Amino acid sequence: MTAPIALGTPLRRVRSVWVHMAGLSLVFTSAGMVVCAGVDVIEGGHGAAGLILAAGVTALVGEAMRRGSRVGEELNPRAVFVAVSLSWVITAVAGALPYLFTGLLGSFEGALFESISGFTCSGSSIFSAADFADATPGLLFWRQMTQWFGGMGIIVLAVAVLPFLGVGGLELIRAEAPGPTSDRLAPRVSETAKRLWAVYVIFTIASAVALFVTGIGWFDAAGLSLALVSTGGFAPEAASIGAYDSVAVEVVLIIGMVIGGASFTLLYAALKGRPLDYLRNSEFRAYVTGLFVGIAAVTVFLTTTGSAFGESLRMAAFNVVTLGTSTGFGNATGAGSPGDFALWAPAAQVVLLLFMWVGGMTGSTSGGMKVLRAQVMAGVAWRELRRAERPRIELPVKQGREVVGDAVVGRIAGFVLLYVVIVMAATLALTLAGNDILTGFSGAVSAMGNMGPALGEAGPASSFAVYSGPERMILAALMLIGRLEVFPMVLSLVVAANWLGRRVRSR
Amino acid sequence: MTAPIALGTPLRRVRSVWVHMAGLSLVFTSAGMVVCAGVDVIEGGHGAAGLILAAGVTALVGEAMRRGSRVGEELNPRAVFVAVSLSWVITAVAGALPYLFTGLLGSFEGALFESISGFTCSGSSIFSAADFADATPGLLFWRQMTQWFGGMGIIVLAVAVLPFLGVGGLELIRAEAPGPTSDRLAPRVSETAKRLWAVYVIFTIASAVALFVTGIGWFDAAGLSLALVSTGGFAPEAASIGAYDSVAVEVVLIIGMVIGGASFTLLYAALKGRPLDYLRNSEFRAYVTGLFVGIAAVTVFLTTTGSAFGESLRMAAFNVVTLGTSTGFGNATGAGSPGDFALWAPAAQVVLLLFMWVGGMTGSTSGGMKVLRAQVMAGVAWRELRRAERPRIELPVKQGREVVGDAVVGRIAGFVLLYVVIVMAATLALTLAGNDILTGFSGAVSAMGNMGPALGEAGPASSFAVYSGPERMILAALMLIGRLEVFPMVLSLVVAANWLGRRVRSR
Repeated sequence: MTAPIALGTPLRRVRSVWVHMAGLSLVFTSAGMVVCAGVDVIEGGHGAAGLILAAGVTALVGEAMRRGSRVGEELNPRAVFVAVSLSWVITAVAGALPYLFTGLLGSFEGALFESISGFTCSGSSIFSAADFADATPGLLFWRQMTQWFGGMGIIVLAVAVLPFLGVGGLELIRAEAPGPTSDRLAPRVSETAKRLWAVYVIFTIASAVALFVTGIGWFDAAGLSLALVSTGGFAPEAASIGAYDSVAVEVVLIIGMVIGGASFTLLYAALKGRPLDYLRNSEFRAYVTGLFVGIAAVTVFLTTTGSAFGESLRMAAFNVVTLGTSTGFGNATGAGSPGDFALWAPAAQVVLLLFMWVGGMTGSTSGGMKVLRAQVMAGVAWRELRRAERPRIELPVKQGREVVGDAVVGRIAGFVLLYVVIVMAATLALTLAGNDILTGFSGAVSAMGNMGPALGEAGPASSFAVYSGPERMILAALMLIGRLEVFPMVLSLVVAANWLGRRVRSR
Repeated sequence: MTAPIALGTPLRRVRSVWVHMAGLSLVFTSAGMVVCAGVDVIEGGHGAAGLILAAGVTALVGEAMRRGSRVGEELNPRAVFVAVSLSWVITAVAGALPYLFTGLLGSFEGALFESISGFTCSGSSIFSAADFADATPGLLFWRQMTQWFGGMGIIVLAVAVLPFLGVGGLELIRAEAPGPTSDRLAPRVSETAKRLWAVYVIFTIASAVALFVTGIGWFDAAGLSLALVSTGGFAPEAASIGAYDSVAVEVVLIIGMVIGGASFTLLYAALKGRPLDYLRNSEFRAYVTGLFVGIAAVTVFLTTTGSAFGESLRMAAFNVVTLGTSTGFGNATGAGSPGDFALWAPAAQVVLLLFMWVGGMTGSTSGGMKVLRAQVMAGVAWRELRRAERPRIELPVKQGREVVGDAVVGRIAGFVLLYVVIVMAATLALTLAGNDILTGFSGAVSAMGNMGPALGEAGPASSFAVYSGPERMILAALMLIGRLEVFPMVLSLVVAANWLGRRVRSR
């Protein structure tokens, strides 16, 4: 069915979800670059021209894509998956321009890695201390802003798009009832997204104010808040949070990270006057309990291996929360300092590795496999234990008060396995390239979970510059795959391969 | 309901499955010790008296337990689980006696570890080179024989007991039809077990003959065959298979290990004239394909990191098979020799670690999570990928030609998760005790999968003497848990805890 072209239509719009979505995303992104150019001028930087140039290119391409395309009536999951994936990739490519146009990074690969790490809210960096010193303030602010934009995208993805597609979220468990159909997606996305974006903005402003009160100056306070609410982990200082060496800053960040790693629907409810919704949510209870247990365990491990109790508690609290929320700020003041967890007792590092797998809650900006999935899988294991005793009894797996059906259990198990397989494949590739097992494995876990730092040679006092260029492209791919909850990216690759195959065959 | 005591009954027999089963196992075991005393005399050793003493004590206790107990009409899963677990533990305690009574090992803990490692077909050892030199031949033969006895136990467990209880095996997948009821267990076990034991004996003799033909002498040939058919991994030489440095020996062992890690039901069919049953079995195809892919990958990794192709292939083939079947023989001729995989390129070690998780086929004597479970989980992951594209379509997971229902998927997922959680908990304990992450983690994976060697400091040219006494008790517990496919041992611990709780409360 071809629609008649209306009179006066200046150009024929291509019906393409991905072109339209990526175009919109680029236009938004270019506006951010302009803001950063303004910041650069205020802070007396030298990069405003480069940022404006990047904004111009991005806006031109974005506006052309947006105007030249339209979203059709029908949305199929495949089209949405591909659109989300391509939008993220295209936006990340545009986001690499400021690093190049301000003259800081010479290689496109390096700029792209930093941009992907930003937009996926990972926070792994290849910046050296010299790069921090040389970077113009506007570019450092742009680096922070990529995370904030990424977080906005994830909120839509996690709250509206993925549940619609039957991936992740409590909606998945409630999927017994007929799910939302495709024609209901658009109003749901825009309505929910607007509400949650408002929450996101309020949260950002509140964080910035709280950080400003600790006395770190407006630039760092604003910049950090952008990476805090998105559980991103970039900091405008070379030593990350270690640059402040301040308990007050760390306490504000811990509170912010815990909120950022929790569901934004719960934050919305809290702002609407229902703060107790947090406690009524079984995933939140498990999330907070896990963080407390992790902090207690690491505190004990650090104390028994020679640190004072107070320092152990501070290091444990900050670093368990920064990895248990997939943020990735570091509070190491230098290599070998107490916050350099790559040098902690092995048992404490094992605890951190477990948090790097799980990450935060569904419906948040955090990465990892998510607490909800870990809970359901733990319920499945527990059921098996009880059923081994009484093989003929039917025992439902429960999540809070909801019964999780066998079909949903199968889907979550499938997700977890895919996640593990991808991490193992990447570990193999990274060790094959010459990394030791711990650096390769923890790098893959960290990238897939959008954490930021890893263990081994890529710890919090080091950087991802220890990985070579091709290795970083593998890690960047993992960041995108993990960020989009595995399926959109993997399916897009399948679609791309099919499309290439058809092109090759048709020649 | 108390049964009337028949006239002429000499003693009132306690109705207890575990006492009876453990008693039977001890009587069998004592006969093995007598055989070893004979071997000791023939080989001119000095340990016959100690072995006979151990046999006497074992036989006395075993016969008393056997005569003083009877198995009731009704068997409930819990009683069977506890009986299997306790039989294994009690037999392993008796199996430690020869190490003590021949005067070789001074600590009961050390002797118990070696015995548990033997009876669980693990093959991890605390023997030093001096211990091998000092050990009397009869004791070395006993060490080999513990593995053979363990293998006999596992065959009953894997082929008859566990499927009856709904754990593991293809029977689990076929469990759609009403399963066997408890009154059918006894005849099934004894009939199936006798048939498979005959296969086991034939396989052992054939292996011993083949090994003898390679020229390693009858003592080593017989001893190795006992640890080969049980995929155990103990060797009567300090350098394990490295002592022979012979391609012929390694080829015979590779063939034997591949057969030993495959289902004994298939071996039975082959001996009955249906060798093609192997190829018709989808789990066997996956198992062999996995081994080939692993060998190819490791060969490439070793060749590209500096080894000659021929040597790389030999090292890859032997070590991938020894870990992919959970046997654990080593072909390192010394620390740092080509077979010392703890020093291989990291990527090759990652491949070995993956094989250490999976192990061999269901219905075999091998350990690990089993190929069948890996296949089903891979099928689940694959289904999720396809379903993400078309969320509303029902896609069954298939295993060969059989459809695997969601309930079975849930059970397998539960098993896998329990397995992972136990390995991670043990890793935490081992790193907490001071091991580095790789030594702690690979030790836990190796013990849980009944492999033998680990990585890091516990590689094939080293021994489990690098772990302290308490650490070895953790590893021994893992060996038992893994050996009995998780549930029997864990449930027994729960039952024991309940029983202790009642005793404490009733005081």
